[in-house]
Amino acid sequence: MAARWDTWVGRFRPRNGVIRRLALNRLDARLSLVIMRRTKKGPARMISRLSAAGILAVAAIAPAFAQSAGGTPAARLSETEARRVETLIARALDDDTAWRLVEGLTTEIGPRLAGSAAEARARDWAVAKMKALGFKNVRVETFEMPYWARLHESAAIVAPFPQPLAVTALGGTVGTPEGGVVGEVVRFETLDALKAAPSTGLEGKIVFVDEKMTRTQDGSGYGVAVAKRSGAANEAGRRGALAAIIRSVGTDSHRNPHTGGMRYDEGARRVPTAALSNPDADQLARALAHAKEPVKVRLDIAVEAGETTTSGNVIGEIPGETGEIIVIGGHLDSWDLGTGAIDDAAGIAITMAAAKLVGDLKGKPKRTIRVVLWGAEEPGILGAKAYAEAHKDELARHALAAESDFGAGRIWRLQTRFGDGALGKAALIASALKPLGVGPGDNEASGGPDVSTLDKAGVPVIELRQSGWDYFDLHHTPDDTLDKVDPDDLKQNVAAWAAAVYLASELPGGFRDAPAAAVSP
Amino acid sequence: MAARWDTWVGRFRPRNGVIRRLALNRLDARLSLVIMRRTKKGPARMISRLSAAGILAVAAIAPAFAQSAGGTPAARLSETEARRVETLIARALDDDTAWRLVEGLTTEIGPRLAGSAAEARARDWAVAKMKALGFKNVRVETFEMPYWARLHESAAIVAPFPQPLAVTALGGTVGTPEGGVVGEVVRFETLDALKAAPSTGLEGKIVFVDEKMTRTQDGSGYGVAVAKRSGAANEAGRRGALAAIIRSVGTDSHRNPHTGGMRYDEGARRVPTAALSNPDADQLARALAHAKEPVKVRLDIAVEAGETTTSGNVIGEIPGETGEIIVIGGHLDSWDLGTGAIDDAAGIAITMAAAKLVGDLKGKPKRTIRVVLWGAEEPGILGAKAYAEAHKDELARHALAAESDFGAGRIWRLQTRFGDGALGKAALIASALKPLGVGPGDNEASGGPDVSTLDKAGVPVIELRQSGWDYFDLHHTPDDTLDKVDPDDLKQNVAAWAAAVYLASELPGGFRDAPAAAVSP
Repeated sequence: MAARWDTWVGRFRPRNGVIRRLALNRLDARLSLVIMRRTKKGPARMISRLSAAGILAVAAIAPAFAQSAGGTPAARLSETEARRVETLIARALDDDTAWRLVEGLTTEIGPRLAGSAAEARARDWAVAKMKALGFKNVRVETFEMPYWARLHESAAIVAPFPQPLAVTALGGTVGTPEGGVVGEVVRFETLDALKAAPSTGLEGKIVFVDEKMTRTQDGSGYGVAVAKRSGAANEAGRRGALAAIIRSVGTDSHRNPHTGGMRYDEGARRVPTAALSNPDADQLARALAHAKEPVKVRLDIAVEAGETTTSGNVIGEIPGETGEIIVIGGHLDSWDLGTGAIDDAAGIAITMAAAKLVGDLKGKPKRTIRVVLWGAEEPGILGAKAYAEAHKDELARHALAAESDFGAGRIWRLQTRFGDGALGKAALIASALKPLGVGPGDNEASGGPDVSTLDKAGVPVIELRQSGWDYFDLHHTPDDTLDKVDPDDLKQNVAAWAAAVYLASELPGGFRDAPAAAVSP
Repeated sequence: MAARWDTWVGRFRPRNGVIRRLALNRLDARLSLVIMRRTKKGPARMISRLSAAGILAVAAIAPAFAQSAGGTPAARLSETEARRVETLIARALDDDTAWRLVEGLTTEIGPRLAGSAAEARARDWAVAKMKALGFKNVRVETFEMPYWARLHESAAIVAPFPQPLAVTALGGTVGTPEGGVVGEVVRFETLDALKAAPSTGLEGKIVFVDEKMTRTQDGSGYGVAVAKRSGAANEAGRRGALAAIIRSVGTDSHRNPHTGGMRYDEGARRVPTAALSNPDADQLARALAHAKEPVKVRLDIAVEAGETTTSGNVIGEIPGETGEIIVIGGHLDSWDLGTGAIDDAAGIAITMAAAKLVGDLKGKPKRTIRVVLWGAEEPGILGAKAYAEAHKDELARHALAAESDFGAGRIWRLQTRFGDGALGKAALIASALKPLGVGPGDNEASGGPDVSTLDKAGVPVIELRQSGWDYFDLHHTPDDTLDKVDPDDLKQNVAAWAAAVYLASELPGGFRDAPAAAVSP
């Protein structure tokens, strides 16, 4: 992605000091649109880079832009607001605070499984960083949760084509008996096909749900694919199967299986469940197609599970002038396989760095900016639930909530869930983000997993949607490491968040229609 | 790579029925040059696709083309030769024999470590396939070799930032004492830096050689980087270190470390040695930079090693009219981490499929085409040495040798090592490969690892150089699996090999200068 590998292959007519050039990267042969702004002195400065895929995506949603623009009357920022937004963006694009936070957390803590000693070390780390960055009221709000950790896991085809398979236990699974289980594999193309299978015939067998996930920019392929993470084990258990294995919920083709949380149905017969990497799922499907006899697999999983352990949310604030609160943040825990760089050290770093930039402006913000680093998101937004419970009496004072939890890719769209009367403010924020290549989206945002509890309680939310083309190549795998984060993309994120958070803290009147909106679904 | 994702973004003026269009792939945003030929009926048919990187590479070596073309007088194939070359290319581009062989070997055998039971199963598989494809004189020539296999391996930073590291034992290493060793890590930027270190000061420590590999099209970065695979352990052993770890000899950024053979110096103190994946090497280097105290790592390796086991070369022939022999092939063994799809099921499949196509032509070839599937290439071309020894009396009748052992990428260059008097024939073969996007190269070929013994004995060699841009992302890793092979690229390989092997079997007079060349170095 480095600019030094760019060859300019085309340029558009400059407009208002903005230069747009087509660049061909000699290293990875990708075409991109580079948007630069003239500076008074020195060379033009890059402010955005859009991949060819991004260009096509923007073209595809252009009609939605027009519609959205038509629905809201043109509005303008005040001169002060516009100047401060410009200052924040310029500072963010030149600031490596977020990078240093991602690097620090992933290096000095590494993986930080919910409820583990590593997650506790991450809380200490985060408290120290928040204090060092000048946040006020820095504290940890602890809560109790059940504990689960993997001890070991392996799988192999034992007949007729003996060979190992790359596998990972899904979070929450039970283990196998010691030494593992061996069973004939029965493959289902989709979870629905397994659901449609008769209630007998799978006793003592290993169910294999081979459903593939679709790659999309907005991550919409995940919702469909993730159902098998719990569904395969529950359907298999109901039918007397030995175990359930699934094709990873992920879009890459590396031997790195994707883990993720699963949950047994109430009162269900609990069978062990694990995910094969995509190439291993391909291999098992081929083995079934080639074999003239039953294909047998050994699955061996050992886990550690306990009734209770401690997790916590780390909180720090930029205090405002009024009692209103804006909550932003990311989650501090990660799955254990990688170092949680994109999921979700990036989200923590982006929101901390953005809040700090707003806090560095002269004077207090109108509303308090509260950064929450949620604990135990991965096993089921446990930190978010604890926060909503602990703060239920002040939820009416929550003016807005937003989480960054979709990696470290460039932001391409602003989405909101505001009251109808506040949609003009969504357009205002969108106009401020335009120079960063962020387009306006719809008013159907959920705000991110950890603010979904607040969204449900009627707190308005925004979502700064990141490009998710490669997110599910990395998410929940050993490959979720620092090298996958692009420092320039991270800066674009901080710039967008700083501008949005600043306006969210200043725009008068809030984002609900009326106080009653606070209790509507 | 699928054409259905192409958007045409430009076209060149058609020449001689050849259409060249620029395509932008909507899925991966890559630009490529698609070369198509008009057909009498129906749509134009793709004959080659060049990535933007490939276009730039071809442009970069264009001066070499011109030079090479200047050095050899223009020559033409006879009408029969030209027609048969055209037939072979057309058939190859429509033939999935190679794909089915790669799929079969990687699925039904999977990993096939030299000297293992899996390699023996692979020999049985290969004999059956050769017979089914109509090869004659199919046989196995066995040889004895020392045995080495990994049992388990793990590594972790134990202080001050405890976390696991993705590691793999290098082939031939000794194990650690049970439970592993723990030592302070001392990092060296390069192998040369370690060599320059004093002979004391590393006692009881773990040496970490962090040298990076350069990505190149021709794989030239490998020679430099691979020295540390043996060098780190030998230099560490000499200095009393506990163990040696290296950054993987590879260019990817996944948590899949690269294995590969290492050898201890004669009489050396043998210390265990292993490779970290590139992201883990980055992580360890960062941990050293962040730590305010020594960084300690635990390395735990168990291996199995034996004096002797059996391996073998599988041989099949398309018998020719004369006593002369052309040897082509790939190696049957693979490292144990992946299924050896690109290293080297692809090479086996390409050369078998190409030889079969030549064998399917009417009449016998002039020279015998012998396909050799070498055993035990990875631990040090043991099959090649056994072949050269077993066949030493007929090496003078070996007219030409060539191996496919650089993955499954498209062929972009023909290289030879012919006698000066035979260079016109190199130009003839090159002219036949031109429609496939293959350019002429120099006369400095080595022919591939398993024919290096023949090259040294004076047997002329050719090399059909494959694009190696991503070869060292996959080579010797768990990621060397079938999904990394592009069926269309494989067909281009088979087409080039079929044309080259056909001409090598027919062109009169051979490729040496004179019989004496048979014993020159």
